[in-house]
Amino acid sequence: MRIVVDAMGGDHAPANVVAGVVAAVKEFPVTITLVGMGDRVKTELSKYSYPDNKIEILHASEVVDMDDNPMDVIRKKKDSSIAVGINLLKQPGYDAFVSAGNTGAVVAAATLYLRMIEGVDRPGIGLVIPQVNGYAFLIDVGANAEPKPEHLCQYGHMARAYMRGVMGVQNPTVGLVNIGQEEGKGSGFDKQAYQLLQEKVPNFVGNVEPNQVFTNKADCIVCSGFVGNVIIKMSEGLMESAATVLKREIKKNPFAVLGAFLMMGALKGVKKHADYSEYGGAPLLGVNGIVMKSHGRSSPKAIKNAIRATMREVEHNILEEMKTAVVS
Amino acid sequence: MRIVVDAMGGDHAPANVVAGVVAAVKEFPVTITLVGMGDRVKTELSKYSYPDNKIEILHASEVVDMDDNPMDVIRKKKDSSIAVGINLLKQPGYDAFVSAGNTGAVVAAATLYLRMIEGVDRPGIGLVIPQVNGYAFLIDVGANAEPKPEHLCQYGHMARAYMRGVMGVQNPTVGLVNIGQEEGKGSGFDKQAYQLLQEKVPNFVGNVEPNQVFTNKADCIVCSGFVGNVIIKMSEGLMESAATVLKREIKKNPFAVLGAFLMMGALKGVKKHADYSEYGGAPLLGVNGIVMKSHGRSSPKAIKNAIRATMREVEHNILEEMKTAVVS
Repeated sequence: MRIVVDAMGGDHAPANVVAGVVAAVKEFPVTITLVGMGDRVKTELSKYSYPDNKIEILHASEVVDMDDNPMDVIRKKKDSSIAVGINLLKQPGYDAFVSAGNTGAVVAAATLYLRMIEGVDRPGIGLVIPQVNGYAFLIDVGANAEPKPEHLCQYGHMARAYMRGVMGVQNPTVGLVNIGQEEGKGSGFDKQAYQLLQEKVPNFVGNVEPNQVFTNKADCIVCSGFVGNVIIKMSEGLMESAATVLKREIKKNPFAVLGAFLMMGALKGVKKHADYSEYGGAPLLGVNGIVMKSHGRSSPKAIKNAIRATMREVEHNILEEMKTAVVS
Repeated sequence: MRIVVDAMGGDHAPANVVAGVVAAVKEFPVTITLVGMGDRVKTELSKYSYPDNKIEILHASEVVDMDDNPMDVIRKKKDSSIAVGINLLKQPGYDAFVSAGNTGAVVAAATLYLRMIEGVDRPGIGLVIPQVNGYAFLIDVGANAEPKPEHLCQYGHMARAYMRGVMGVQNPTVGLVNIGQEEGKGSGFDKQAYQLLQEKVPNFVGNVEPNQVFTNKADCIVCSGFVGNVIIKMSEGLMESAATVLKREIKKNPFAVLGAFLMMGALKGVKKHADYSEYGGAPLLGVNGIVMKSHGRSSPKAIKNAIRATMREVEHNILEEMKTAVVS
């Protein structure tokens, strides 16, 4: 299996990307094509020892910045690592693309170069999120801020294929993020989406209130990219704020300092449980290729985990599974 | 000062409401009119000793259930504690209304019976939320799921009046919840709202990303009722899930059990910091009267704190301040 990785993507590129790729090729049966500024990638790679034949470098002369406008990238940076990397998927022998770079640019380039699969109008970014017990798949978390109700149905079908194919869940349930339990809650959009999901998507279990996102109400949770983005950024921010307040409280009392030391394992357990990077990146679904977006702040470990998660998608032939699910 | 309290509102009414009211009259210079089923309220009150002249009961023969449809309540339950209580505010001598009951019914009854203040089209529910340092005012958290951009401007003006008048913040800043920092992010609605806020609301500081809601980006944070409701329900759910996972991790290791014991104060400090009921209820703004909504699961302490927060609004003559802020 060969996975194409954007060497220049993310806040700490190419250092973190290269470190993650080296860890991945040592641990997993995978070959990597690193796309980016050849010299800089070579310099980073020279810091490590690894099986030479498992990493190749493909030079791309331009770099997409995290705050570049996605449409400008498409028009003006045609030799960026994102554009070159995604275009590689059209050639045989390249199975998937992973980037920690500019999300909008990855979505735009994948949509333009790979096109959509039949039955899907707009791509969506999904995320495997940890629940109190097990996992759920949340989609969309930011590709499509203002979807139509039918887009949520397409997300529902693709999410079910993902949970079934990659996560091994039999007949996954689907829920809609809404501000009340009962049918008829929310805005006009939410009411229409509810109706359509009920008609068209198997095993739809109704509305999921925001406080149920981390319990086990549904295996697949669909929402607009705006709401999904609020959910993941909010939970990141809230856990960080809670940690800050906890540290401040601990400092008030020497017994609490000792307590924190004794509880370190448990606190780390919660952090590990809540940390999305433990589970890899966020798959971009709906485009005709396997594309994985990992967090801009990705550590080497997060990059390695994103590669592992991408390998699982390739192994389970998730793209074909999704194509069947959407049109059936 | 006399505050009208819905004795029948909330999941544990009238028991928790009566207990909270008794605590409030003992602690604060306030007189309460408890509206609800006379017999049941009397039975609860008989469990406590308190200054007789500080609590009066007003019988209302109907009770609004938490899942009643708000429009049905308005049409069919005209003698409910919510309808009777809100109508009292039109008489001199009644300063404010507090309810832990059906949010939709409180919003509908307040809109119908009190009408809107000049310059405001739709009511919004605000909430004082704890940040790492200090507080912010988030509006709307659920009255208006599908607002127009100009409603967010009206919320901005009212939120500023609230933070200035009640919380003592000089020249409060205003931010818009959005999925990116820069102008031009989000849906068409978000872009329009950004423009309008920039033109019309003083001290607008731009977009607030969801992970900045609990840091100190802005004093007043405006959003649609859908998004605000997602934010508060998510944070409730996430803190509960994190606590569940932490307890599970602690049980794995006896040292961690001891650690948790030593850290109890610090953990309670975080809980207290994050607990909205510490700060009272959620003011319903835009109607021509002071109306406070407290959480359906309110404890007696939450009811007491909601009464205290309501008293502050009356003391600071917040309604007049808001009327001036909106039209100026």
